Amino acid sequence: MTAPLYGYTILDLTHVLAGPFCTMTLSDMGAQVIKVEPPGTGDDTRTFPPFKDGKSAYFAAINHGKKSIALNLKEDGDRQTFEKLLARADVIVENYRPGVMERLGYGWDDLHAAFPHLVYGAVSGFGHTGPDSKRPAYDMVVQARGGVMSITGEKDRDPVRAGASIGDIVAGMFLCQGILAALLDRERTGKGRKIDVAMLDSQLAILEHAIAITSVTGQAPGPSGARHPSITPFETFHASDGLFVIAAGNDRLFEKLCIALNLPLADDDRFASNAERCKHARLLKRLIEAVTLDNTRAYWIARLTAAGIPTGPIQSVDQVMRDPQILARNMLVDVLDKNGRQAFKAAGNPIKMSDAPDPTSRGPAPDLDGNRGEILRWLEQG
Amino acid sequence: MTAPLYGYTILDLTHVLAGPFCTMTLSDMGAQVIKVEPPGTGDDTRTFPPFKDGKSAYFAAINHGKKSIALNLKEDGDRQTFEKLLARADVIVENYRPGVMERLGYGWDDLHAAFPHLVYGAVSGFGHTGPDSKRPAYDMVVQARGGVMSITGEKDRDPVRAGASIGDIVAGMFLCQGILAALLDRERTGKGRKIDVAMLDSQLAILEHAIAITSVTGQAPGPSGARHPSITPFETFHASDGLFVIAAGNDRLFEKLCIALNLPLADDDRFASNAERCKHARLLKRLIEAVTLDNTRAYWIARLTAAGIPTGPIQSVDQVMRDPQILARNMLVDVLDKNGRQAFKAAGNPIKMSDAPDPTSRGPAPDLDGNRGEILRWLEQG
Repeated sequence: MTAPLYGYTILDLTHVLAGPFCTMTLSDMGAQVIKVEPPGTGDDTRTFPPFKDGKSAYFAAINHGKKSIALNLKEDGDRQTFEKLLARADVIVENYRPGVMERLGYGWDDLHAAFPHLVYGAVSGFGHTGPDSKRPAYDMVVQARGGVMSITGEKDRDPVRAGASIGDIVAGMFLCQGILAALLDRERTGKGRKIDVAMLDSQLAILEHAIAITSVTGQAPGPSGARHPSITPFETFHASDGLFVIAAGNDRLFEKLCIALNLPLADDDRFASNAERCKHARLLKRLIEAVTLDNTRAYWIARLTAAGIPTGPIQSVDQVMRDPQILARNMLVDVLDKNGRQAFKAAGNPIKMSDAPDPTSRGPAPDLDGNRGEILRWLEQG
Repeated sequence: MTAPLYGYTILDLTHVLAGPFCTMTLSDMGAQVIKVEPPGTGDDTRTFPPFKDGKSAYFAAINHGKKSIALNLKEDGDRQTFEKLLARADVIVENYRPGVMERLGYGWDDLHAAFPHLVYGAVSGFGHTGPDSKRPAYDMVVQARGGVMSITGEKDRDPVRAGASIGDIVAGMFLCQGILAALLDRERTGKGRKIDVAMLDSQLAILEHAIAITSVTGQAPGPSGARHPSITPFETFHASDGLFVIAAGNDRLFEKLCIALNLPLADDDRFASNAERCKHARLLKRLIEAVTLDNTRAYWIARLTAAGIPTGPIQSVDQVMRDPQILARNMLVDVLDKNGRQAFKAAGNPIKMSDAPDPTSRGPAPDLDGNRGEILRWLEQG
């Protein structure tokens, strides 16, 4: 059992979410992640609620198992330490505003000249090029400007954000992909590359059907509420005791659904193909609900599942955290404190890999500068 | 200029979105992607609206630049062709329901024994283990069961889905990360690995603050509306002509915001730290809106941007597709038809990499079985 990224070292200058999420994934796959934090304050999320025993659960959720050293990159002694770290690391990741690394003398051109093996990953609000490159951004700014908010929420009401911080997280994930591809490429060339991911670009990259619709019809889609605009039936339906989901994504599933609901619509021209069903989506929803309102969510989920139709409940986060499938997949792990006791719960590693360990706990999130001695000793070992 | 995955071949048995999104990213980074589709129908999304000249824009958005061969994996001749492809490919990706590949004789154990170099990536609704492993799922089923819908939408109203299909897309992205890490690992071991990603797991993996909050307080968060629950101010605000976003993620930005709004709150104990601001979020929102209602969105976005505060508009998808920053970053590309004419617009590659090409157009999405001759010739070349 060996983690696939065992032996790789990531120098992590990131803060808040996009960058730290990227390096968490690399850590979960076995890389050593060394967080280089500004002395005094460290990563902003150390102050984000909720707290337990004075520690931020938010910070712990994203930074478990990483190491921390506080370095002032404007001070000579700390710069020397930093440069020793650069020489040993495989990857540097940062999410400063474009220009900050250049002012420190650690922009891509300088780094690539001095450490040609080093892969440089940057994630920023708007990217390292373009007219708005230097503007600051957080998750909501790019969910809003990038179009995701315009398709999320209910028709004729104010837009809402996706509850998960996908403005940050998706960008961090694209960066992780770029870093891994660059490491693979380095096996052939011996040389690192720079990866420049923008949070705004990353929102556009996940709009799939919305760009397709706008490109073909000239009309931008509005908020999708609780249904997918290109697939029908694919939404929430009322049972006698509340809402549940049915997602019948092709003709075969629609036929099975009609049988399971005892609703003779499969031969009806208006519902004969997904394209036709999309045209008559509101009528179809009313017809299906006329039946589903007759019994409970649990009844329908069991009945439709037995018939092989994708369906399920809408779960709150505490329900998800008790979901037997989630627990069977080791998707909820303990984050330990320094004494090895369970301090927090956090999401497990969703990348399950053969012959790789999938531990049920994670080491603590580091105190600011908490691994200085250990890191300096590792550097001396050369 | 070389794409980082140049020379890699991906055998792509996937359909709909999670798998095809994963292989699109690999294709955008230079890999050759060969879609192996069932004869007759092919990928379900070939029938998804909207259409242009009889072609699905949805299918084109995710499958541009890939090649297609139709193979019946229950027929001897086609199985021989498929096995020649397995011998040549670096990666096989599939998103069938768990058990389907085993019944075809192409489960991981069989494949790994016959083709030890091959990396095997699987994405499914619930994963290859656990009590619900064999259940079918689509995006909405996992957005609902996985908790994302419970935190998306407005308080005291029905939950809505995130408008982007993050139930599929995020799972496809985790799979892509796993595949790249396994290819990197293969450089040391010569051996492939199996990666098993579940769409349900992937939803839990992006819940960040929601798991932290539930784990510490025992209370699951409700729908977040248009604000982040752990950062304040970080939400939409009314200007005189509509909504815009302010995201001031730390004390320094909050001080700057107070100055820009001419609102003397920076020294007020109730707003002295992010934790305090979160406690008094509703009061703070009213105070800020008391000022922002006095002028237009454009005025405030310009004024706050000049002051270095993260802010921006809520754009519809057609507005995003005209955004100068998006266009400057080559984030909207032409998908060509067979005659080299622009047929569709699609999202560009968000992973910008030094010395890698970033073309402004993509080859056509393949017709079903449209590259058979070319693929068979490539196999013969050995």
